[in-house]
Amino acid sequence: MAEGGRTAAVMAAIRRRIAARGLAPGERLPSIRGLATAMGVSPSTVVEAYERLAAEGAVRSRPGSGFYAAAPGPLPALAKIGPRLDRAVDPLWVSRQSLDAEPEIPKPGCGWLPPAWMPVAALRRAARGLARAEDSVLTDYGATRGPLPLRRMLARQCAGEGLAVGPDQVLLTGSGTQAIDLICRLLVRPGDTVLVDDPCYFNFQALLRAHRATVIGVPYTEAGPDPERFAAEAAAHRPRLYITNSALHNPTGATLSPAIAHRILNAAAAHDVTIVEDDIFAPFEPEPSPRLAGLDGLARVIRIGSFSKTLSASIRCGYVVAKAEWIEALIDLQVATSFGGVSPVAAELVAGVLGDGQYRKHLESLRRRLDRARRDAAERLAPLGIRPWLMPRGGFYLWCSLPETRDAAAVARAALRDGVVLAPGDVFSVSCTAGSRMRFNVAQMGDARVMPVLARALTVPEA
Amino acid sequence: MAEGGRTAAVMAAIRRRIAARGLAPGERLPSIRGLATAMGVSPSTVVEAYERLAAEGAVRSRPGSGFYAAAPGPLPALAKIGPRLDRAVDPLWVSRQSLDAEPEIPKPGCGWLPPAWMPVAALRRAARGLARAEDSVLTDYGATRGPLPLRRMLARQCAGEGLAVGPDQVLLTGSGTQAIDLICRLLVRPGDTVLVDDPCYFNFQALLRAHRATVIGVPYTEAGPDPERFAAEAAAHRPRLYITNSALHNPTGATLSPAIAHRILNAAAAHDVTIVEDDIFAPFEPEPSPRLAGLDGLARVIRIGSFSKTLSASIRCGYVVAKAEWIEALIDLQVATSFGGVSPVAAELVAGVLGDGQYRKHLESLRRRLDRARRDAAERLAPLGIRPWLMPRGGFYLWCSLPETRDAAAVARAALRDGVVLAPGDVFSVSCTAGSRMRFNVAQMGDARVMPVLARALTVPEA
Repeated sequence: MAEGGRTAAVMAAIRRRIAARGLAPGERLPSIRGLATAMGVSPSTVVEAYERLAAEGAVRSRPGSGFYAAAPGPLPALAKIGPRLDRAVDPLWVSRQSLDAEPEIPKPGCGWLPPAWMPVAALRRAARGLARAEDSVLTDYGATRGPLPLRRMLARQCAGEGLAVGPDQVLLTGSGTQAIDLICRLLVRPGDTVLVDDPCYFNFQALLRAHRATVIGVPYTEAGPDPERFAAEAAAHRPRLYITNSALHNPTGATLSPAIAHRILNAAAAHDVTIVEDDIFAPFEPEPSPRLAGLDGLARVIRIGSFSKTLSASIRCGYVVAKAEWIEALIDLQVATSFGGVSPVAAELVAGVLGDGQYRKHLESLRRRLDRARRDAAERLAPLGIRPWLMPRGGFYLWCSLPETRDAAAVARAALRDGVVLAPGDVFSVSCTAGSRMRFNVAQMGDARVMPVLARALTVPEA
Repeated sequence: MAEGGRTAAVMAAIRRRIAARGLAPGERLPSIRGLATAMGVSPSTVVEAYERLAAEGAVRSRPGSGFYAAAPGPLPALAKIGPRLDRAVDPLWVSRQSLDAEPEIPKPGCGWLPPAWMPVAALRRAARGLARAEDSVLTDYGATRGPLPLRRMLARQCAGEGLAVGPDQVLLTGSGTQAIDLICRLLVRPGDTVLVDDPCYFNFQALLRAHRATVIGVPYTEAGPDPERFAAEAAAHRPRLYITNSALHNPTGATLSPAIAHRILNAAAAHDVTIVEDDIFAPFEPEPSPRLAGLDGLARVIRIGSFSKTLSASIRCGYVVAKAEWIEALIDLQVATSFGGVSPVAAELVAGVLGDGQYRKHLESLRRRLDRARRDAAERLAPLGIRPWLMPRGGFYLWCSLPETRDAAAVARAALRDGVVLAPGDVFSVSCTAGSRMRFNVAQMGDARVMPVLARALTVPEA
């Protein structure tokens, strides 16, 4: 038996004795030498096993005195198995259903790619690189803005997209969402009005609700937000912020046109609206489309980025690009609310993958694979009468209408009972006018259960 | 030359040519075969180098067309070297000075241990374990509460301390500070009153300021908060929350007595005050001291924990233990403001170290080492007339009075000019009545520059 196997065997023996009350709480564990002889292992193996049991909390160590069985805790509650059906279908519904679904449950409603589509080999290389990093990378809080080499890399990337910034205008954060949250803390007061697209990424609504903002939707067209409605709402409500995705808009997959971008910027200037442009889907574009930040510079646009969709959602890391005085204020807020900036370990792993020669190829093959999956999903949805609003240039979403204006929330609830997580339209719509629409993640539709469950859910009357 | 060395040599050659404008922006890079021949390397080495340069942003790749020199970005601003002296000495002053100080600058004002005191070997083992983790650990958002095995481990640890909770009452968060921030989002509205200790951890003030709470300090005695003042402030202001550290109070190092704990809980019950007990220094105690959560259960106490002080501050991970209905509400807030829960990569690294047989030994040796450092620091400070308010039972802080009631902020500014970061008393004091006190981190006083700079700073008149 290998050394690890022997240690595990000793640990298992002690656990069994504690569970069977052969060792009562507080009772001393067998002597190291005695148990070593009894089990035919070395004393050091027993010591290692006792130490690990102490680390687990199953036994306690009293310095100079030995090891004792710990008082048993309450019986651990079983993990909640299966989905929760009792929750209102609100903007947090899809998030929580998707995040807490068992791994094997198909999730065409979720907002990320399956593990097999992610750069796993590069992530493993980055983890091995982390094991060799400087001590301080593994132990310290790190600088408030995040590590300079990663900020330089991001500043260069911005420059390549026509946005001239220095690394001091890049602030690394715990995620793209945390970046927007910090901006809301800085600029939004309870009761302030914030504009979003209708439909928009559902979590913008959840986030703004947490800030007690009044949220107003601007209808999203195939070429961007309706510029007349934007100007009218801006004039009527004097909103503090407008939050949007320009590249491959979530959920519609639409692309902002240069003409609409220009009109939105002019209306924002006329009514002093700050714009948060969440560029999280940028790496999925076949070629760059117009950006508000690119047209405006950083005068009134704040750019948000993240690595969650293409690199890893597990390594939490996002960033803000903004004018210098705002970065200073955001740093203070990030220190006050998270103590410190981004995790240096997270930044090291992200920089490791971004600097990996294979990453660009990963992105290219991802775009090709998504093009196929998008066409394939549209073809498989058509016989059910589910049709895309438009065919996006890239990304993983299809924003679809259901046949005969079926109630998407009812369909999503029925599918959830059969173990498939969907994203019904109204969670994306401030005005709740997308009740017969649904967002599909084409990368999450490979599982054979998805189409039959969806077909059945379309026919089930709401309970 | 090793393969990695050859790739680096090709990268360096191209970078030099771009820098010297031998390759203008947009100009095509040398052919792969041509450069391979010229540099005596294989074509695959040149391809690898070009890919890495593309990942860096120094060159651009056009599919099917080849590699081109990128447009140069703005010159990267030099990293700000040296400390910022122009900032008011407020509760964020110490945080930002400490976090952004160059690594070699001594920081007796900071709130963490030097890398050499941390479990670096176990962290490297955990990083190697991460490289072998399941794909989904490396790529996915993870469950909203955090991974069940780590929550089980923490629930067992709570049980060992007399706090019977199931793993569903444990919520993993991005840090201990983020845990308190989520609680404030749930329970505190702008204008609400929150009680803290006076002195208290300075970031509590910064955090509460971000929530626009009214902060009132309760004088901290050698045995805990003054119970009469606590009851009086609670009666007068009906505070929503009281935030405190019970084990090894920050900054004083004092220990809560059972009698005071009992009185505080009764006063909190009488005036319906919720208590946040931040237990971040618990692992430094020689033996457990009374806890409000242990006495009260989780009726009105919320327990906060973190691994930043003993395991790693770079891996951002903290946790909340609270009653089930609050956990549900905190999950919604964490999803809305961070999307998802704790980073699965971070949780995997933390669980790896906690489950490492060496971790308990690390904690024991840390306690012994800190006992020596505390005595040693007190002895070295005495000749300067700097005296501890009390000698703590554990941890790394000494809360001291300066001689002749010198102005600690002036001393800290003078020391900063000489490259030493100190923590002046008033940043800890809501009432600003600790102007001649200073908190010293005894683990950060080994550098030979500290005592001479401190001695000089005590004699320098404020500019």
